Amino acid sequence: MSGAITDVPGVSVGHCTLDDGSIQTGVTVVRPNGGNLYRDKVPAAATVINGFGKSIGLVQVEELGVLETPIALTNTFGVGAIAQAQIRATIAENPLIGREWPTVNPLVFECNDGYLNDIQALAVREEHYDAASAAASGTFARGAVGAGRGMSCFDLKGGIGSASRMALAAGTSYTVGALVLANFGRLPMLTIGGVPVGRALAERAALEQRANADIAGALVAKPEQGSIIMLIATDAPLDARQLKRLSMRAAAGLARTGSTYGHGSGDISLAFSTAYTVPHEADFVAVPPCVADARLDPLFHAAADSVEQAIIDALFQATTVTGRDGHRRLSLADAAPDLTQILAQPTR
Amino acid sequence: MSGAITDVPGVSVGHCTLDDGSIQTGVTVVRPNGGNLYRDKVPAAATVINGFGKSIGLVQVEELGVLETPIALTNTFGVGAIAQAQIRATIAENPLIGREWPTVNPLVFECNDGYLNDIQALAVREEHYDAASAAASGTFARGAVGAGRGMSCFDLKGGIGSASRMALAAGTSYTVGALVLANFGRLPMLTIGGVPVGRALAERAALEQRANADIAGALVAKPEQGSIIMLIATDAPLDARQLKRLSMRAAAGLARTGSTYGHGSGDISLAFSTAYTVPHEADFVAVPPCVADARLDPLFHAAADSVEQAIIDALFQATTVTGRDGHRRLSLADAAPDLTQILAQPTR
Amino acid sequence: MSGAITDVPGVSVGHCTLDDGSIQTGVTVVRPNGGNLYRDKVPAAATVINGFGKSIGLVQVEELGVLETPIALTNTFGVGAIAQAQIRATIAENPLIGREWPTVNPLVFECNDGYLNDIQALAVREEHYDAASAAASGTFARGAVGAGRGMSCFDLKGGIGSASRMALAAGTSYTVGALVLANFGRLPMLTIGGVPVGRALAERAALEQRANADIAGALVAKPEQGSIIMLIATDAPLDARQLKRLSMRAAAGLARTGSTYGHGSGDISLAFSTAYTVPHEADFVAVPPCVADARLDPLFHAAADSVEQAIIDALFQATTVTGRDGHRRLSLADAAPDLTQILAQPTR
Amino acid sequence: MSGAITDVPGVSVGHCTLDDGSIQTGVTVVRPNGGNLYRDKVPAAATVINGFGKSIGLVQVEELGVLETPIALTNTFGVGAIAQAQIRATIAENPLIGREWPTVNPLVFECNDGYLNDIQALAVREEHYDAASAAASGTFARGAVGAGRGMSCFDLKGGIGSASRMALAAGTSYTVGALVLANFGRLPMLTIGGVPVGRALAERAALEQRANADIAGALVAKPEQGSIIMLIATDAPLDARQLKRLSMRAAAGLARTGSTYGHGSGDISLAFSTAYTVPHEADFVAVPPCVADARLDPLFHAAADSVEQAIIDALFQATTVTGRDGHRRLSLADAAPDLTQILAQPTR
Repeated sequence: MSGAITDVPGVSVGHCTLDDGSIQTGVTVVRPNGGNLYRDKVPAAATVINGFGKSIGLVQVEELGVLETPIALTNTFGVGAIAQAQIRATIAENPLIGREWPTVNPLVFECNDGYLNDIQALAVREEHYDAASAAASGTFARGAVGAGRGMSCFDLKGGIGSASRMALAAGTSYTVGALVLANFGRLPMLTIGGVPVGRALAERAALEQRANADIAGALVAKPEQGSIIMLIATDAPLDARQLKRLSMRAAAGLARTGSTYGHGSGDISLAFSTAYTVPHEADFVAVPPCVADARLDPLFHAAADSVEQAIIDALFQATTVTGRDGHRRLSLADAAPDLTQILAQPTR
Repeated sequence: MSGAITDVPGVSVGHCTLDDGSIQTGVTVVRPNGGNLYRDKVPAAATVINGFGKSIGLVQVEELGVLETPIALTNTFGVGAIAQAQIRATIAENPLIGREWPTVNPLVFECNDGYLNDIQALAVREEHYDAASAAASGTFARGAVGAGRGMSCFDLKGGIGSASRMALAAGTSYTVGALVLANFGRLPMLTIGGVPVGRALAERAALEQRANADIAGALVAKPEQGSIIMLIATDAPLDARQLKRLSMRAAAGLARTGSTYGHGSGDISLAFSTAYTVPHEADFVAVPPCVADARLDPLFHAAADSVEQAIIDALFQATTVTGRDGHRRLSLADAAPDLTQILAQPTR
Repeated sequence: MSGAITDVPGVSVGHCTLDDGSIQTGVTVVRPNGGNLYRDKVPAAATVINGFGKSIGLVQVEELGVLETPIALTNTFGVGAIAQAQIRATIAENPLIGREWPTVNPLVFECNDGYLNDIQALAVREEHYDAASAAASGTFARGAVGAGRGMSCFDLKGGIGSASRMALAAGTSYTVGALVLANFGRLPMLTIGGVPVGRALAERAALEQRANADIAGALVAKPEQGSIIMLIATDAPLDARQLKRLSMRAAAGLARTGSTYGHGSGDISLAFSTAYTVPHEADFVAVPPCVADARLDPLFHAAADSVEQAIIDALFQATTVTGRDGHRRLSLADAAPDLTQILAQPTR
Repeated sequence: MSGAITDVPGVSVGHCTLDDGSIQTGVTVVRPNGGNLYRDKVPAAATVINGFGKSIGLVQVEELGVLETPIALTNTFGVGAIAQAQIRATIAENPLIGREWPTVNPLVFECNDGYLNDIQALAVREEHYDAASAAASGTFARGAVGAGRGMSCFDLKGGIGSASRMALAAGTSYTVGALVLANFGRLPMLTIGGVPVGRALAERAALEQRANADIAGALVAKPEQGSIIMLIATDAPLDARQLKRLSMRAAAGLARTGSTYGHGSGDISLAFSTAYTVPHEADFVAVPPCVADARLDPLFHAAADSVEQAIIDALFQATTVTGRDGHRRLSLADAAPDLTQILAQPTR
């Protein structure tokens, strides 16, 4: 049912959380493996579902089909600092590459946590990347932590969520895991397991004319200002072209939670495989036999399911947070203490 | 609730249905307006969600952002004949363009109806395009008609479906309509209004060990072999770049019905605007003020909703069809006479 | 120096030429190998440099990275017929695939030969594909033959050209070959080996006020109405992503001949590797070690050089042709009998 | 013949040059107009010719077709700092946007100047962006200045170059200007006006066995490690889709100088129009009548010519620079004092 992206062997996740009054933000690092990623690169590809986003690194991932740093997540205005940190860390780990003419492709994704976080304070600094990276492990907290600290989702508290699925493809059992930084959606759109929970909550709030300004604010029709980053890991051997196909399936999982990829939501997914690496220096690149395209459907299902589940996980794990200017995001649990009943009711 | 793509003023749809034993196929034509489309082109853009497809015309639509023929739908092996027919029809309608050095971009989409239809008979011929085109009107049949005659969807009878929504964007009311050629999905994936109807049907069939081979066949895990073409029309003034954004939202509507964009499913959407045309001969192209990108969310919702609803409409409208080699596809109504109860039950 | 695409072992080319008064057109078929391409597909990828074109097949090549039929070239209005022919031929060669639910992706490229050829006569028929395919061999004619019969290039006679280069990549010697269907450009743009030959010819024609209407017509500033298809073959082991990179380098070779990718010119390149095949039925696809991306530059150079040389080859090999309505295209040799001197003169 | 990008009315360029021993780098800022770019955005689009690059901002430009900050150029490891600076500058200029939930899309391009510059020192800081921005004017230095300070091109000294052309399109005279940050190519590839100057220089150096280690080093066959950023400005009214088409023509201009878009060269072009702006807050966006696509060829020619000329301009304007570890790049003038004679000789 749940699981995490770290169920894919070798994957680790670390956070650095900044929680100090109006500063509610942070950095999350996802490592595909424990090795030197610059020397042994990881096959990867991305899909830009809606390009209202300020990431760095996707141009080269698209061209070369590999990542050569850990994947970093942070707030919109922290991308520059974290990219710098990735460059420094790569040079530190690879002194030889610096001797001649070094180059490295940082890979930093972002969402805008400006509702809870004083994003203009530019609080995210290089050392926060190092801290998150050092903390990477096979077990990790979710919800309002790391890059997810200040994020909102469906006008509720969002953040980091994760999930995994097993898939039987080409007669072999593989793991597909997802980690999301969920910061998108308006309340009335929220859908859990097919049930329009958000609409129910919004209607109730309207009926009660309740004083709860947190929820009430959500009822004002406004465009989305969020974003979601969806990372998909698998131990199935896939090449970059196939990983691009896999990353596209995040759009299905995302849609099931109610999203229609809002204009102002930077919805980006990236998929990587842990089945092999691509050496920095080599004449030829040997890739193990990859799952045939005609056998990919179970992996596609697993990717969509993992992403959907990871988003719901973010909502379930997040706690209520109060940030800058008294802005508050209720956790789903606080906003809907009777969620179980809502889910159990026939809604039509 | 329902409606049709023809609720967008000016849009018309016509079918030519071939129903003769093992020949169960046809042609459907969608006209954005009643004018000369070559002389006054229609702004349009497409998204290839999964490119397992054999359409013709998308390369030029991507480059120039217009369509210059009606949109034709047919079976996979009929694309060539229908493209020829579009060329002939355009030349006939524009004798002057033929004098020097004519060129026209046919636009034909396809799904593979080979389960019910003897597709290798190549029964679709040029005249069937002319017949469908001549039949185009503001009211049109749905289900197992035209290009939808032989199509399957979720292992049930699919075909042509349509729906529309009103959307208030930039303070103005617009119509968004969808027409789909639905030929995708395996039964256990079918989801209607969030309810996993397909899983319920599949489980029941398995329990009953019922003799119904039609449904039983659906329980064998096989990859998808279908496809879906999703056309989105709107009277909102949008340029080609924005129409591309709109067409991407078809992926959300499609996902809500249970699809994860299967490997073998050519999932393509195309959106066009009826708000203005682009002249074939002109020094400058005047476009009316377009809805600002930041105001597009209501149109995005409407596009996703219309596509979802159009798919469900195809299932509701289609009748049981028997085709080649005794292959049969049950309509949803025949497969699930108790559908209303299934939908009303809490499923968790 | 020259060579041909068939210098890549296994590649063969065949033509069917239609030369009958106002019918000046044809079909050219390029086969990556002599095998059953549907059963054992060939890795391939394409770049659309300028998408004013009506090809069929690129959507699926982009998604799956393989071709499963020979590559066919013909005139713009022949695409439908040739696509049908490819479908029939594939079914004939693979009776088993037809038993259940067959599907095949035709791959047909086109240029518009409407200046010399009565393109509206739709003279290209399915049997012309079969004839071209049957004629495929390691040696083949160039110039005004096959699909090149009616093509124009720089207002001169264009058509089929080919060339090849050796490249040393990753310590290994590989062959890169190109075949072009050249039908683009206005005379003043023509550049050979860096020398603005076209400008010289155009200026001379203007000076002489010569009666030669063929050349004179070229001096009227008109937009391009042509197109060019550029096929690149190599025996270097490359995956589809890398072949896409290779195909992009056709843009460099094309530019060197004077093109700036005119609005009305459908400039498309496709690259394929003969180093391995991808089976139609398999759980896993084994690919040999591919040349590392960092070692691709010599192949990139060879691709650009081959394409440039193939275009010049088309001009050198083509003979003067008179077609419909007395339209005539001079060969480069007839238009510039003193070409050697023009090339030898310092032009600045 | 030459001119500069600032010939397009309103465009201004400013540099901040860091020239201090082993620090040879800088920042260049290109402003499309003198206004508030966040409030009144500029239509723009980009083409990634070869994506070995680490720019930031292209994802959103691709989605929305506008830029909302000045365009910044710097070295590879300076992208993060300059992106931060753009964010700060935008917030400072738009205090109101910061009140609620601000977001801005920085747009920073880079090349790797690591041969001459101690890039690992991360010398580029936020204030250098402010300095370059403040210095923006209609006249500007070229060559080894700003972001071009440490750049190499064809193993010679590269840097900033610019050029412009007039084009008559749709009966109207427009200006097209280019500015390049040229840092690509190996010496033997250098081609000027069709003449293989680089080959001549390389052969001479080899013959003379000259002690000049600067040139000698260029003769060792190594892959490119450079990159080139090509900015194209025009006052012609074009929408984002058309600007993407225009930006693609940079590939032709680049190819004429000898490039085949080397693996390690991040070759990216971006085109923008100064003919109108897109307001940040609006319900509808009014765009003036745009040049019809069928009339674009003169602009395409002008874009290719400007880019070619701008690259040559960078070589002619750059002076010899010595940087880190005694690394030196000769200017073209110093490497080929007899360039005029080389260009005048017939080379075949």
